[in-house]
Amino acid sequence: MLLVQVLDLIGTFVFALSGAALGVQRGMDLFGVLVLAFVTAVVGGIARDVLIGAIPPASVASWHNLALAAVAGLLVFRCFGLFDRLRHPVQFFDAAGLGVFAVAGTQKALDHGINWPMAAVLGMVSGIGGGMVRDVLTAQVPTVLRADIYAVAALAGALVVVAGDAVGLPPTAVALAGIALCVFLRLMALYRGWKLPVAPSRKPGAPV
Amino acid sequence: MLLVQVLDLIGTFVFALSGAALGVQRGMDLFGVLVLAFVTAVVGGIARDVLIGAIPPASVASWHNLALAAVAGLLVFRCFGLFDRLRHPVQFFDAAGLGVFAVAGTQKALDHGINWPMAAVLGMVSGIGGGMVRDVLTAQVPTVLRADIYAVAALAGALVVVAGDAVGLPPTAVALAGIALCVFLRLMALYRGWKLPVAPSRKPGAPV
Amino acid sequence: MLLVQVLDLIGTFVFALSGAALGVQRGMDLFGVLVLAFVTAVVGGIARDVLIGAIPPASVASWHNLALAAVAGLLVFRCFGLFDRLRHPVQFFDAAGLGVFAVAGTQKALDHGINWPMAAVLGMVSGIGGGMVRDVLTAQVPTVLRADIYAVAALAGALVVVAGDAVGLPPTAVALAGIALCVFLRLMALYRGWKLPVAPSRKPGAPV
Repeated sequence: MLLVQVLDLIGTFVFALSGAALGVQRGMDLFGVLVLAFVTAVVGGIARDVLIGAIPPASVASWHNLALAAVAGLLVFRCFGLFDRLRHPVQFFDAAGLGVFAVAGTQKALDHGINWPMAAVLGMVSGIGGGMVRDVLTAQVPTVLRADIYAVAALAGALVVVAGDAVGLPPTAVALAGIALCVFLRLMALYRGWKLPVAPSRKPGAPV
Repeated sequence: MLLVQVLDLIGTFVFALSGAALGVQRGMDLFGVLVLAFVTAVVGGIARDVLIGAIPPASVASWHNLALAAVAGLLVFRCFGLFDRLRHPVQFFDAAGLGVFAVAGTQKALDHGINWPMAAVLGMVSGIGGGMVRDVLTAQVPTVLRADIYAVAALAGALVVVAGDAVGLPPTAVALAGIALCVFLRLMALYRGWKLPVAPSRKPGAPV
Repeated sequence: MLLVQVLDLIGTFVFALSGAALGVQRGMDLFGVLVLAFVTAVVGGIARDVLIGAIPPASVASWHNLALAAVAGLLVFRCFGLFDRLRHPVQFFDAAGLGVFAVAGTQKALDHGINWPMAAVLGMVSGIGGGMVRDVLTAQVPTVLRADIYAVAALAGALVVVAGDAVGLPPTAVALAGIALCVFLRLMALYRGWKLPVAPSRKPGAPV
């Protein structure tokens, strides 16, 4: 599917932008920024590939993602102010990248014979893994565990693929529907404040 | 061994409880709590399976652990106060889960032809890996590196399996002995304050 | 190559020293110190081996690195003051270990048929991976992402191997040249303050 391949490149590029931007904000040098760009863009897919036995992972077997992440990292390093102003478009592409990674990752897991609940989880991991490691490397609690509808949007897109695969619908249409659902949920979370419930924990001052 | 399988399910469930409880304490939303429950329950076993070449890992090849962790996460999310009062029973099951994971992980590594020192290490990793990643994801130094006899209890249980395997004792009896030793050491650490020595470091105010 | 094997053992030992020293500084008990020593020494190589499909990884298939890391950990635990005074020699051996790991890791990746850009990246990962995980486990931003020329020195050594392999030069000479370049860059960073540029980020008080 040419469409998904193009979207996959866009997803890789946008995820690399988000990693590089965090690196610049943290005052890292050029190399740290490039590492963070690459890690954010490829770690989710690498984790999925290792877990389904597709070794060496796609991002190791080819150097295209490395080159793409390097370009994104250099761009952010040279023109950080520009990307800071482009926050809204970047958030949109980030949502699109999340959807594409989740959908393509689920499809790849199903193709390798993984059962459907774990295929959906692995699709979600493809989408959120890079961002989680990016946050861990900068010593903060991963945002996907903390806020908004992010991982859930990825999981919703992944479940569309699983459902379409079970019913036997044409893969391209199913992939587009999954990406659209993920982007829709993500934008609702960003601009309408959609949230998941938080548990009523014990009060901060209560005895442990 | 039916007994070990039952204990393995209990271990998965209890580890998922501990991950979910930390998520609720940190104010995560429902999804973050479920992710933390699943990660805590399965990451140790997944790391072991990848390192011994059992790919896809057991927790990816089947969806049972995912379902079990989701149930545990939902329970904690809805009834956090209850689990907060059940601290002592939970600590006991956590010790049992640690022992079961360490013993079963060591046996699996030996079955895959790993040398005995690394088989014991991989058994320990099966037991402590999930908790380590849980702590890293919530941006704190893993407790297993910091306090009490925790990893050591897991390693002791693993070494019982290694020794029993070398001598040729019946596996079931050896497994039970390993689990019992792990639980005993863990409970001594919790209720009697057993500790390992700490090195006399330089004074906090000394020049670096 | 006997020389590289000897240097590899030295690298493992020195990396284990650096992990153990951080554990003692953080007040960990004996076991935490040993875990940190082992992790720092072997995680980079294990990650590389998993990604190129050399499973089980060399540090799992044999117990030599485990034993070596344990000796290093015990030494630091008992004689921390000594190692604190030996900072300069330790930094030199750390640079040598970094070069050896990067060079040997690149060669191994090339031998497994990985394309040259990713082979260089995997060589670098072999060198810096252990230190990154060591820092994450102690809840700090990995120093390789933050400061000095460290990962870059490893990458430079890796690229020497890639270039030598492409031209067909004798592997031993190429390996020595790669190690020498890595050590040289690292020592220039330490004693001459060589640095990579840092991006002009937005001012701390500027609106997000």
